[in-house]
Amino acid sequence: MAKAAFYEGNKTFTVESVTISPPKDDEVQIRVAYCGICGTDVHVYHGHMDARVGMHRVIGHEMSGVIHAVGKNVEDASAGDRVVVRPLDHCGECSTCKRGLKHICENLKFLGLDTNGAFQEYWSVPAHTIHHLPDGVSLAHAAIVEPLAVACHDINRAQVVAGEDVLVIGGGPIGMLIAMVAREVGTHVTICEVDEKRIAYAKNLGFNARNAKDADLVEQLRNDTDGRGFNAIFDTSGVQAGVDLFTQVSATQARICMVAIHTTKPTIDLFKFFWQELELLGARVYEDTDFEYAIRLLSEGKVNPDDVITNKHPLDDIQSAFIPPKDLSMKTLIAVNPEIN
Amino acid sequence: MAKAAFYEGNKTFTVESVTISPPKDDEVQIRVAYCGICGTDVHVYHGHMDARVGMHRVIGHEMSGVIHAVGKNVEDASAGDRVVVRPLDHCGECSTCKRGLKHICENLKFLGLDTNGAFQEYWSVPAHTIHHLPDGVSLAHAAIVEPLAVACHDINRAQVVAGEDVLVIGGGPIGMLIAMVAREVGTHVTICEVDEKRIAYAKNLGFNARNAKDADLVEQLRNDTDGRGFNAIFDTSGVQAGVDLFTQVSATQARICMVAIHTTKPTIDLFKFFWQELELLGARVYEDTDFEYAIRLLSEGKVNPDDVITNKHPLDDIQSAFIPPKDLSMKTLIAVNPEIN
Repeated sequence: MAKAAFYEGNKTFTVESVTISPPKDDEVQIRVAYCGICGTDVHVYHGHMDARVGMHRVIGHEMSGVIHAVGKNVEDASAGDRVVVRPLDHCGECSTCKRGLKHICENLKFLGLDTNGAFQEYWSVPAHTIHHLPDGVSLAHAAIVEPLAVACHDINRAQVVAGEDVLVIGGGPIGMLIAMVAREVGTHVTICEVDEKRIAYAKNLGFNARNAKDADLVEQLRNDTDGRGFNAIFDTSGVQAGVDLFTQVSATQARICMVAIHTTKPTIDLFKFFWQELELLGARVYEDTDFEYAIRLLSEGKVNPDDVITNKHPLDDIQSAFIPPKDLSMKTLIAVNPEIN
Repeated sequence: MAKAAFYEGNKTFTVESVTISPPKDDEVQIRVAYCGICGTDVHVYHGHMDARVGMHRVIGHEMSGVIHAVGKNVEDASAGDRVVVRPLDHCGECSTCKRGLKHICENLKFLGLDTNGAFQEYWSVPAHTIHHLPDGVSLAHAAIVEPLAVACHDINRAQVVAGEDVLVIGGGPIGMLIAMVAREVGTHVTICEVDEKRIAYAKNLGFNARNAKDADLVEQLRNDTDGRGFNAIFDTSGVQAGVDLFTQVSATQARICMVAIHTTKPTIDLFKFFWQELELLGARVYEDTDFEYAIRLLSEGKVNPDDVITNKHPLDDIQSAFIPPKDLSMKTLIAVNPEIN
């Protein structure tokens, strides 16, 4: 028997004992060490995704762990291997998969939303989704690989290069990770955020940070680039003010990466897109190479996960882990089996 | 003395005799053969650009002609050379020019709007703006080079490749030229248009053409691509309906090229940009290489200018040339000096 946390609707999780089933032929079964709470998990908790996720569902996907058992068809993976999971299962049949774009497969299953996830002790996943961890990366740190791979994908989509001026709109966990990767690439990074505590947090990490509520925000940001505007802008805010801002502070031929999920249709200054030859690039999840990039950044010490991990809760305590703390919180991990590492 | 047509505001041109001044040291003086009427010239005629253009201004920039005289600093050009003009004069000093993007220079002067243009017999321009014509291209045909270079720039911006499904929203002269270049690249082209006469015109040129007013337009367009959606979409419409359409019929990672000038801020489905990893690319005017591409397409017979040139008027008749004909009109040329060729 093993513990699993089930989402039961109405902001409620129950932790129950479940029997451990062996993995299917093409699966690996992982003993979960840590699993972070994603913004998407918070949307599930608030009931916004009940139609997709359903009831009595185990969620969670930002995980790390050790392989416990492998299905009989699985090669290149063994019990004891330290791994993370790229939680995407593609169909392989649609026109998008056939073009090699499996991460945006037209029938994509997201593990931990469309299937059961990693807020449980033993998680079985398709073997093609695992990435092995190098020795130097702890399992606690490796729980950051999935959101860091999002940031790596965003940086790759926007083709950011050294020396450029980069603006990150929104200083939450994903915004902060994008800023860290962009700085590692060699750019000059500014973060724009509304929350004073997050502004202070960003400054403490050495970033230039601006308050989005300042009346002279656009002037401040233009001055930050000596009037040239930003070469790459990442919108993690998902609000009209973010869309208004990015066309006001862009350099000519700037790449604007749309990281946020917009739930309504904002207005946009398309004349500015024409005039300055701007590019807007949607960026969703990650590809295999983004996971490898994220693991390498941790392995080489280029990104420090402790700069974003602010809270840890045991699995039994998952209910309270979803209640926002009064103090600033970036990334909360559920320590499912913290004794393995 | 020579003739020149002056825009005097209020939909009025006057044709006057002017003295012929010699070119400046860095200029060439061209005897104009033909000059097409651009959509922008029509905006000037309607008074929408009076603040920029001013009164008693010679407009016109889609021209061809023969060099009459050269300034003393000019090399690589001689009297008698058959040329077209890329009507962009950049500053060379701004951060955009320094990045090599002189066509979107922050202080760009557009010849024929910000300076006097080619609706006159003798036009002096900076020598760096001319492109020589090969023998096989007539001056009447060469008047299409400038708008064709716009189409070439759009195709290049969207990185269109053979075998792709391409949608052109709006079947005016620029839309039709984009469709011609896209077809020449080897793509499957569909044109979406509201005007029945233009739809018939597009079909007559061999294009798949859809009526944008059809209630089942989206279904028709999705069927045109066997459900995959279009890989590249060119919006020449500049209206909300065009912006609504392109996110409804796009393939995953489609490139959407913003050719139109939007005078208001439309709403846009940014969720679709995220979900399908779409790209929106602003495209303004052209680069040197786009002009060379356009000239080569004419020289090799890959695009036939007679497919878009529907009307010709003498310079004395410029006033009536700006009145839309009852029959379908694509591109109207002012035959300034049609005897030279």
